[in-house]
Amino acid sequence: MYGKATAITSPNIALIKYWGNRDERLMLPNNSSISMTLGDELTTKTKVIFDSKQDKDQFYINGKLQDLSDKETMERFAVINKIRSIAGTNAKVLISSENSFPTSAGLASSASGIAAMVLASTKALDLKLDSRELSIIAKVGSGSACRSLFGGFVKWERGQKADGTDSYARQIAGHEHWPELVDIVAVVSDSKKKVSSRAGMRQTVKSSLLYKARPEWAENMCVKLEDAILKKDFGTLAEITMKDSSNLHAVMLDTYPSLMYLNDTSKEIMYKIAELNESEGKPVAAYTFDAGANANIITRKGDADKVMEMLSQVASIKEIRKTGIGKGPRFIEES
Amino acid sequence: MYGKATAITSPNIALIKYWGNRDERLMLPNNSSISMTLGDELTTKTKVIFDSKQDKDQFYINGKLQDLSDKETMERFAVINKIRSIAGTNAKVLISSENSFPTSAGLASSASGIAAMVLASTKALDLKLDSRELSIIAKVGSGSACRSLFGGFVKWERGQKADGTDSYARQIAGHEHWPELVDIVAVVSDSKKKVSSRAGMRQTVKSSLLYKARPEWAENMCVKLEDAILKKDFGTLAEITMKDSSNLHAVMLDTYPSLMYLNDTSKEIMYKIAELNESEGKPVAAYTFDAGANANIITRKGDADKVMEMLSQVASIKEIRKTGIGKGPRFIEES
Repeated sequence: MYGKATAITSPNIALIKYWGNRDERLMLPNNSSISMTLGDELTTKTKVIFDSKQDKDQFYINGKLQDLSDKETMERFAVINKIRSIAGTNAKVLISSENSFPTSAGLASSASGIAAMVLASTKALDLKLDSRELSIIAKVGSGSACRSLFGGFVKWERGQKADGTDSYARQIAGHEHWPELVDIVAVVSDSKKKVSSRAGMRQTVKSSLLYKARPEWAENMCVKLEDAILKKDFGTLAEITMKDSSNLHAVMLDTYPSLMYLNDTSKEIMYKIAELNESEGKPVAAYTFDAGANANIITRKGDADKVMEMLSQVASIKEIRKTGIGKGPRFIEES
Repeated sequence: MYGKATAITSPNIALIKYWGNRDERLMLPNNSSISMTLGDELTTKTKVIFDSKQDKDQFYINGKLQDLSDKETMERFAVINKIRSIAGTNAKVLISSENSFPTSAGLASSASGIAAMVLASTKALDLKLDSRELSIIAKVGSGSACRSLFGGFVKWERGQKADGTDSYARQIAGHEHWPELVDIVAVVSDSKKKVSSRAGMRQTVKSSLLYKARPEWAENMCVKLEDAILKKDFGTLAEITMKDSSNLHAVMLDTYPSLMYLNDTSKEIMYKIAELNESEGKPVAAYTFDAGANANIITRKGDADKVMEMLSQVASIKEIRKTGIGKGPRFIEES
């Protein structure tokens, strides 16, 4: 048995974040999340070759062979085992994944990497799966990966069912719906996370009193944000995005022991964006922070220069990248 | 009419914090709070002279004449007007307040200052008020001031009544109950608060979704902490103290716009205390942060050297002060 395929995907930035599961084995979240898929400036290309003549699995990221006994690598690789079991094959696999952006860019490469791995693998094995089935597989590798299966604006539905069949990603609107939006990434810190997201969210769910109030609130915000996206209401999008980021970092801080990802530079960026919005008399930019100190700033093309100018005043920012909304995954032919 | 008195008080450090009112005019809090009054190393001495021959009020702090039209000064001074109205006098007052510690010490001097002002004023006017009545007056100046009316461990009861008559401070245990406890103050930043506590807590109550979960939790923690204090159970005291500090700073962060008081040095201290407790296999120290970046670290005398040693490794700490539990207010005779 032999099959190969290559998929290209992009990272996504969540405007309403995923943090905490109702079922960790099936990766069923406590609340829905909404993201924007980033543009072609930032891509992950993953080539997958299944070959029953090979005697072992091999997984390369940016040319570097990964240790398949490493815990985080195993979590990502779980999607391959899942796909092999669906296809009824035990052919070994050679995976080679390349990011067009340095991992120091402060963008989660795991979401785009796993999404590309799922798409290329299922194509290589000629599996006909719909996007719901693909989502369910992708999130086993990393929850946010299912949101990188689409371009534009994406909602990962929490779902209600115990078997998880109603918890999957779907597109709210394509990239062409709101082309004015841009994401500016301000790289603040490239230090490795002290606690992985998976372990961190487990701790939050277990120990944070305040977290109990988050899921229902986030669920309501998802409804409002989807509506704001469809109406292209930037003010509402900006306010919800900033509130959700702070809500997330608040429940992280309330975790015992505290999880603290924002640093003094992150705070300076938050204050500066608040000042900019104040001086403009309306929100023209919104910050959001994942489990890290790097800022993603959502704004519109007409205001991007103002934001870039403002960020240039923050001496401790290491790098700034601007990107638009992405079209989403595609396949390419490779020899 | 002429009357004078001098009172000496100490600041208090809250282990379960006050943040948010159910009635702002009467200063009735959404949750009870518990504090430790600090020792004689840190005192405020306030002399009050009522004299109907004088034609204006004068208020000095550390020798500096205060502007009575300044908003924060007016808030503090409100207790004088309240006391004059109880005494039925309109005699002008000369107040002179001195802190034995620099305001840069990172300790709220307003609590001890207002407590001393209330005690000296009511004595000067020969008013016979019980501690409940004194509390109710003091908290009009600053909520936490009522906790500096006593030594040792103090609980400010939330109360239930609309008129506030059941919201007052009472002593849980005197300073002699647990003399092993010490408070180590690590001064991190002497920059002025961007937002006053009174304005900040108003914003939190108004805008933070997560805050809704705080009052009931803090109320339960007060019951547990009072019990831990009576039993001298340090492990429980330490855990509740750290959790409440992070819970407070979490709801501050969840405020819109976000209130952020912890800085990178505060975080470094939190991590170091967590490491120390981890390496000791049990909590031997607990951090707590008011609305600022300075740390108060509660520990026992036998562990204080370890904590001091650990803090000496944090290069960005400006000053370290150690103090015990205070006996509480006293009056002195002055010419």
